[in-house]
Amino acid sequence: MSHRDPLTPFLSVDAARVRRNVERVQAAADARGVALRPHVKTHKVPQLARLQVEAGEVGITVATLGEAETFVAAGLDDVLVAYPVLLDEAGLRRAAALAERARLVVGVDAVEGVRRAAPLAGRVAISIEVDSGHHRTGVAPGEAGAVAAAAADAGIEVAGVFTFPGHSYAPGAGPDAAAAELAALDAAADAARARGVEVPVRSGGSTPSLAASLAAPRVPDELRPGVYLFGDAQQWELGRTGPDDVALTCVASVVSTVGGRVVLDAGSKALGADRAAYATGFGRLLDHPDARIVQLSEHHAVVELGDAPLPRVGERLRVVPNHVCAAVNLADELWIDGEPVPVAARGRNA
Amino acid sequence: MSHRDPLTPFLSVDAARVRRNVERVQAAADARGVALRPHVKTHKVPQLARLQVEAGEVGITVATLGEAETFVAAGLDDVLVAYPVLLDEAGLRRAAALAERARLVVGVDAVEGVRRAAPLAGRVAISIEVDSGHHRTGVAPGEAGAVAAAAADAGIEVAGVFTFPGHSYAPGAGPDAAAAELAALDAAADAARARGVEVPVRSGGSTPSLAASLAAPRVPDELRPGVYLFGDAQQWELGRTGPDDVALTCVASVVSTVGGRVVLDAGSKALGADRAAYATGFGRLLDHPDARIVQLSEHHAVVELGDAPLPRVGERLRVVPNHVCAAVNLADELWIDGEPVPVAARGRNA
Repeated sequence: MSHRDPLTPFLSVDAARVRRNVERVQAAADARGVALRPHVKTHKVPQLARLQVEAGEVGITVATLGEAETFVAAGLDDVLVAYPVLLDEAGLRRAAALAERARLVVGVDAVEGVRRAAPLAGRVAISIEVDSGHHRTGVAPGEAGAVAAAAADAGIEVAGVFTFPGHSYAPGAGPDAAAAELAALDAAADAARARGVEVPVRSGGSTPSLAASLAAPRVPDELRPGVYLFGDAQQWELGRTGPDDVALTCVASVVSTVGGRVVLDAGSKALGADRAAYATGFGRLLDHPDARIVQLSEHHAVVELGDAPLPRVGERLRVVPNHVCAAVNLADELWIDGEPVPVAARGRNA
Repeated sequence: MSHRDPLTPFLSVDAARVRRNVERVQAAADARGVALRPHVKTHKVPQLARLQVEAGEVGITVATLGEAETFVAAGLDDVLVAYPVLLDEAGLRRAAALAERARLVVGVDAVEGVRRAAPLAGRVAISIEVDSGHHRTGVAPGEAGAVAAAAADAGIEVAGVFTFPGHSYAPGAGPDAAAAELAALDAAADAARARGVEVPVRSGGSTPSLAASLAAPRVPDELRPGVYLFGDAQQWELGRTGPDDVALTCVASVVSTVGGRVVLDAGSKALGADRAAYATGFGRLLDHPDARIVQLSEHHAVVELGDAPLPRVGERLRVVPNHVCAAVNLADELWIDGEPVPVAARGRNA
């Protein structure tokens, strides 16, 4: 097998589409004066993060210290960990080591989190996570004042407030989520100011709320979309990307057509098992918009192809995963324009 | 960080429970005269496969040639690939190389599959996959005769017929699925015999149908359970395992308790996103049987703990993944009795 003929299933990336997606979103953000700090959990590949930063993005967002370690080791030097990082003994040591090589901002969503972060004062800044309606982590906006005041008392820089409008992941929810996000960030910044702490960056954003945020009368200072550079079936179903902009597919082989069922060798161990309530299947086919993956096991995808003729066993089809972040995190490499590139931060959950 | 204090989230295995699960199932199979050929896709670890074989199992089952390569390289020498393996040029070369070091049987579910396998005659045997109701891959039982006859014509050994009773994965479905499985295997073997081909092994089995198979009036010759050595939340919900037999958990840290919500650092990138229709959540807690994971994102599990007191940030809890095969395939290592062991076949989808 040559490197240009990988075994199926494998993840294939169209670099021209990635560049086009990145440049289009950057131009739209520039036009509104919004900074972009993309969430690199989507791709986990330092080369793609560099492409984003070279296009004008101000830095990167990660979810874990492990992801930060991978990207900082590769030369990325401005990192927000958009997560309430557990700063226990190991967390403090790791954050301090990262801060020697990069500007590091870590998420905090409680006064207790500030207390844990205190030994990093002067080296690491915090961003206060705010709940804008997703009800996961994050303080209520009005409580950001107490967290900011605790940071001031401990001598810790408050670099910003941030939120994840996860409730934007529903059909038609983009505008409402974008509005809720901005209101929560404003309220949090006001609450901090009332305690004497100015918050320089109000950071929001997700791929499904991106267009709504950029079209709204006012915008946050910074947005953190992730999926936008690849697109996926979820965004396609939500109408936030079209098939012409999908830049990553899982190339799969037909392994069985018994009984007229088309079965591919890309199962949940290649595509991920994510299925949103509104999704019409477990993935879509880039070249057959009417097709749906109707049954998914670990190594089988059963496809309803619609009116398309039955393919032959051995034929390769391009699958668009439901959730591209999950598919990437299953793969050891992405094949970018036919060359294998390691998914350097794969599996770095800690 | 010492090797004995891994960062969360990580997968922890209780070796004594694994041995107990393996030995209990082996004893039950021995009592019925059924061979066991466990599906090692569940653990992907050669050391655990050796433990199973040493307990008396006749060989291993895998899903891909890549998994076969990992286990054969580690010395396992009797392998069924229970999948309609695509024997294109690369597939033929890889199967031939494996056959030099192990007894290899590959799945076939079409006459065309036999034609593709023909160059391996005398080196690799086939097992004919039969559909017993799961409607994925596999020929209708009556059509196994044509496949067997084609194999005889090509000089290919028919080692058996096999099926996966995936419809056993529903509450109460075990006995019906076990009966359907046996009927399909019998019908396939009869169809082959009618074409002059004796089928030595009728192979079935799954963890949820295992107890029903072993309790039935007649049994297949061989069963291929996978999950039974670890258990998982899905089997727990189905009543096919109890918490005292769960041998693998994902150890996670509490990272937030804002608003009374308990949020753990084990999300879908550590646990997998599998959610069966009957599951009551995205995972369970081993030490809190009433708790449920009610919301899951990539790095967040939101837990409803029931009546248990609110844990502290930093406290570690043991999560039972919904589908253990998916969780294992996300991890680079299992911590078995506190020592890291590589998940050698992780990600070997091809």
